[in-house]
Amino acid sequence: MRDLSYKKRADICKNPTAKKLFALMEQKQTNLSVAADVTSSHDLLELADMLGPEICIFKTHIDILDDFTPKVTKELRRLADKHNFLIFEDRKFADIGNTVSHQYRGGVYKIADWADIINAHIIPGPGIIAGLKEIGGPKGTGLLLLAEMSSSGTLAKSSYTDAAIQMAESSPDFVIGFICLRKLSDNPAFVYMTPGVQLSAGKDSLGQQYQTPESVIHAGSDVIIVGRGIYGAKDPKSEAKLYQNAGWQAYVNSLT
Amino acid sequence: MRDLSYKKRADICKNPTAKKLFALMEQKQTNLSVAADVTSSHDLLELADMLGPEICIFKTHIDILDDFTPKVTKELRRLADKHNFLIFEDRKFADIGNTVSHQYRGGVYKIADWADIINAHIIPGPGIIAGLKEIGGPKGTGLLLLAEMSSSGTLAKSSYTDAAIQMAESSPDFVIGFICLRKLSDNPAFVYMTPGVQLSAGKDSLGQQYQTPESVIHAGSDVIIVGRGIYGAKDPKSEAKLYQNAGWQAYVNSLT
Repeated sequence: MRDLSYKKRADICKNPTAKKLFALMEQKQTNLSVAADVTSSHDLLELADMLGPEICIFKTHIDILDDFTPKVTKELRRLADKHNFLIFEDRKFADIGNTVSHQYRGGVYKIADWADIINAHIIPGPGIIAGLKEIGGPKGTGLLLLAEMSSSGTLAKSSYTDAAIQMAESSPDFVIGFICLRKLSDNPAFVYMTPGVQLSAGKDSLGQQYQTPESVIHAGSDVIIVGRGIYGAKDPKSEAKLYQNAGWQAYVNSLT
Repeated sequence: MRDLSYKKRADICKNPTAKKLFALMEQKQTNLSVAADVTSSHDLLELADMLGPEICIFKTHIDILDDFTPKVTKELRRLADKHNFLIFEDRKFADIGNTVSHQYRGGVYKIADWADIINAHIIPGPGIIAGLKEIGGPKGTGLLLLAEMSSSGTLAKSSYTDAAIQMAESSPDFVIGFICLRKLSDNPAFVYMTPGVQLSAGKDSLGQQYQTPESVIHAGSDVIIVGRGIYGAKDPKSEAKLYQNAGWQAYVNSLT
């Protein structure tokens, strides 16, 4: 059970991106994020426009698009504003501070110019947060730390997860929450997002493990991230509505 | 002290990239890798051509180039063949198997088309190796696992390092070695590469910690990775020769 609604947590958040996220989740009645793991820019933008009304976050792997141009992220930004969702580039930054600041700001993708949310592994130590914050802090973007993963045999557990929580608590203005499988902290400003969600639990051939929307929200997570379950469906729009409804009902039922 | 020369280890290696690496290290008398962390394609290619004769590996962060085009990697590949060095794209893959296979093969950078060596974090579990091997295995490329890092407060230590060694030993045909600070295994086919090397030890403002060529080779590592110490120097060519000589002498002195 959860004590505070998304709306109340929006009021508590200091980071502008976290505040905006919780507010739009309440307003649109959705805790669904779609993981748009497609390799064509056309498919990516079509998904964003089609699913925009159902989602709170559009999660991208911009570096798997075979035909990327800067126009893609410009158009994605327009769709995010049109449908009121946030863009989360799932880059999983994982290098020393000096390198990630270049990777976040520069290169072909210029992630800092269009992504509201990014994420990072904590393995390099706290320098990675400092490096990303140099770029994202002034823009008011938000960083998620990978505290747990949904893949089989992951090392993101026990003391590693604890270290992620501690690092987040040391940078609460820029770290807005976690990629994880459950609620991890008593700080209501942190948001929990869980990947590997499908309507039926299961596993892929490369170790990904699936949980259902109900079990994820019941574990105290806030956002369900659904990939192949939606973009791989015959009718992604109808499927997204099923997930949106399942996720939202689970949230409503979890409120005390 | 080390029992086996690079040459003898070339004979032992099964992976063609590892075999080629040890052979060319012996032939060119260099264990120096330059980390070419520049943001201009012109500077990158100039460094590769200028430093090519001194190095065994040219390490790239292709995603920090502000003006990348596919011509850059084509030209880099030509220079690698001209000067007989390997290209190591320091991508630090860190996602589930299905995602990293897309990131390795596809996108704008098509890393699998030009990089001899890539690296990965083990946090997602063994699926990350399986996903990368699907693409790199048939090409004969080599994967390094990040077992240790040079940054302050890194979590890549103790049981995490042990897990990396175990995962490498489970995939010895594709995993050719480690990013680490020292020799980690008794298997002479594994290569150890250490970043954060400068002629004087020290630290940067975002947590990077530096060791000297001598201390790194003395700890049993095989390849010294030098970034700002070379590309940030007034005369990178002369500086690279200093590092090449320091690294090679330390190796020669370490042979029993």
